[in-house]
Amino acid sequence: MTTSTAQGRDPASLRRHNLRALLRHLHLQGPTSRVRLGEVTGLTRSAIADLVGELTERGLTTESGSSQPQPSRGRPPLIVSPRDERAYVLAVALDVDTVRIGRVGLGGNVLEEMTTQHEHVPGDPTASLEQLARLLREWAGTADAGPIAVGVAVPGLVRAEDGLVTRAPNLGWRDLGLGERLCDLAGLSVPVVVGNEARLAALAEHRRGAGRDRADLVYVSAGVGVGAGVVAHDQLLTGSTGYAGEVGHMITNPGGRACHCGARGCWETEIGADALLRQVGVVDPPDRQAELEHLFERAERAEAEALEAFRFLCAPVATGLANLVNIFDPKLILLGGLLRPVLRHAERELHDSLDRLRGLPELPVELAPAQLGEQGHLLGAAEAAVSSFLTTFE
Amino acid sequence: MTTSTAQGRDPASLRRHNLRALLRHLHLQGPTSRVRLGEVTGLTRSAIADLVGELTERGLTTESGSSQPQPSRGRPPLIVSPRDERAYVLAVALDVDTVRIGRVGLGGNVLEEMTTQHEHVPGDPTASLEQLARLLREWAGTADAGPIAVGVAVPGLVRAEDGLVTRAPNLGWRDLGLGERLCDLAGLSVPVVVGNEARLAALAEHRRGAGRDRADLVYVSAGVGVGAGVVAHDQLLTGSTGYAGEVGHMITNPGGRACHCGARGCWETEIGADALLRQVGVVDPPDRQAELEHLFERAERAEAEALEAFRFLCAPVATGLANLVNIFDPKLILLGGLLRPVLRHAERELHDSLDRLRGLPELPVELAPAQLGEQGHLLGAAEAAVSSFLTTFE
Repeated sequence: MTTSTAQGRDPASLRRHNLRALLRHLHLQGPTSRVRLGEVTGLTRSAIADLVGELTERGLTTESGSSQPQPSRGRPPLIVSPRDERAYVLAVALDVDTVRIGRVGLGGNVLEEMTTQHEHVPGDPTASLEQLARLLREWAGTADAGPIAVGVAVPGLVRAEDGLVTRAPNLGWRDLGLGERLCDLAGLSVPVVVGNEARLAALAEHRRGAGRDRADLVYVSAGVGVGAGVVAHDQLLTGSTGYAGEVGHMITNPGGRACHCGARGCWETEIGADALLRQVGVVDPPDRQAELEHLFERAERAEAEALEAFRFLCAPVATGLANLVNIFDPKLILLGGLLRPVLRHAERELHDSLDRLRGLPELPVELAPAQLGEQGHLLGAAEAAVSSFLTTFE
Repeated sequence: MTTSTAQGRDPASLRRHNLRALLRHLHLQGPTSRVRLGEVTGLTRSAIADLVGELTERGLTTESGSSQPQPSRGRPPLIVSPRDERAYVLAVALDVDTVRIGRVGLGGNVLEEMTTQHEHVPGDPTASLEQLARLLREWAGTADAGPIAVGVAVPGLVRAEDGLVTRAPNLGWRDLGLGERLCDLAGLSVPVVVGNEARLAALAEHRRGAGRDRADLVYVSAGVGVGAGVVAHDQLLTGSTGYAGEVGHMITNPGGRACHCGARGCWETEIGADALLRQVGVVDPPDRQAELEHLFERAERAEAEALEAFRFLCAPVATGLANLVNIFDPKLILLGGLLRPVLRHAERELHDSLDRLRGLPELPVELAPAQLGEQGHLLGAAEAAVSSFLTTFE
């Protein structure tokens, strides 16, 4: 039962609730007039003035007269904006070979961004932790103020309650208290949120990408593995522990190939990078990424064998998508990683397979490419960081 | 952004919000002392007294001194209870052969319940509508007050926004505006909510059954078809249209048997009543329900062939369950319909299959029988009705 604010409620918590509500609106909707803030929150003009005054005093927002010429007479309305050079988060997207770090303002603007090599020692997180801590200290130091929160996207299973990286196969990590360790090493006193990269990319697509203004969507991205995130009623689905969304281990071909997870016929064994490369005769390549990019280029040049490989993938891709449609009724599925070129080069075949496999015509679905690409993990980490800032804001 | 109540907010909507909050608490938690109501809502004593006064005056609640002897001196605390002989919903669970109707009080008590034959003409809803309208009029008439809302559980796809029954294969209905029609025919002026029976049963198990105090769960029930409902973070998953949860059409055996939905190898073709009966050599029986019950009895008598049939079902059942675990991370899966005897007679085999197929050890799951059985659809319809009453309460 939510009565976080109510008639006769402790005024301090009421005020906190309203400050958070204003910041959340400014983050998601951008610069907003005082009048509009009053409309969306139901607060009186004097209450808005008072609350905005505090936010501005604390360096989180700034006010200015409207830039647009006014149709009506009278002074231009005051526009409240996030002051993002002071109110920003640091976001990190971790991969096996690279570390991406960005400074993202309240409101979602990427103020600075950099990608560097990941000093990664397989199985031993020490070097990675030191590198990340160093980067965070540097980036926090170069601004007029420290970050309001930090978010980290990881290719692995992350426990929601404490950000424990339970298992990150590609990094060789198990049960690593990443958030906690980074707090200590970087001397951070702000919230550090850690999340699964695909779940965070789904959140980013929902708030800043191809899924804006859609309350329900499924994001699926295929690479070596298959990652996904589900947004239902504007909420990222986490499950009871934070592991919801492991659709790559949905069994779409019982008795099929062995998956690293221990099961057989998991969706990612059917549509992952290896399955695609097998179609062009490439097995266990030394540099999988290079082979993939080569294949993408060949498809762009419309080489028959490359296009055929993407067409071949349509049936197994559609099998899993059909399941997701029947399970989630999302109306929108966003495709990332190697599923983008599948959609690009074999869209008709993919839709035909899906229509054949998706029995219920009552559940139409739109397939669209994910919009944020590589940056999705970073932006998702930033969104998660802002959310945790807002829930702890005093 | 939710600021349904806030500092400086219109007092009328604030009061309405608080009245709804109190009613919701009393419905879900039962009789509660004024002091406790103050604690959970954050409202002052005088605000609680004032609001409870209005609810009692309007016949929705009643107050009495505590029945328990008081350890401390001083007068016993006032206990506020839903007045369920006046504050009740009418719930209906519709099946091909039967109509179940019940009077369920605010607070969840079933005050009266009856099951009667469904005057069902396949393909033509007229007779059904007239029968339901007649029942609702009769049951509304016999109480001191009319119902506060009506809920109807249907074996079919129901559109969330307006309760349109898009498709109910077993009833032969398509695009039937059931709620609207019942309002007119029964002359009801209260909300009439229509929902899919399995989704509603999941809601009932979550609030009143085996899933109490669990924020995440998946309910799966197998009969002729397979129905399911998913509760994530205490919310019933509906999807963008209301069709989420059609896990029976998850493809677990590509290229398998043809499903009535038009696809092949849907989970319900693998674990539904027909798949089970095939194991004991029964194909297209005149009375499927009788055959099932006969098989259940034989299993109770530990007849080898019957037990073998349940064991055989474990692998395909586990395939779908493994997918649901990887997708939802629910920690709890409740099994209904013929999946209850599967769990009862082949529990070890089912767990072994699930452990083999569920690759990620990080996602443990408890399998438990659904608790409400036949009554689940009815209680779920009642819960949905109460929810719609609360959201429209003025």
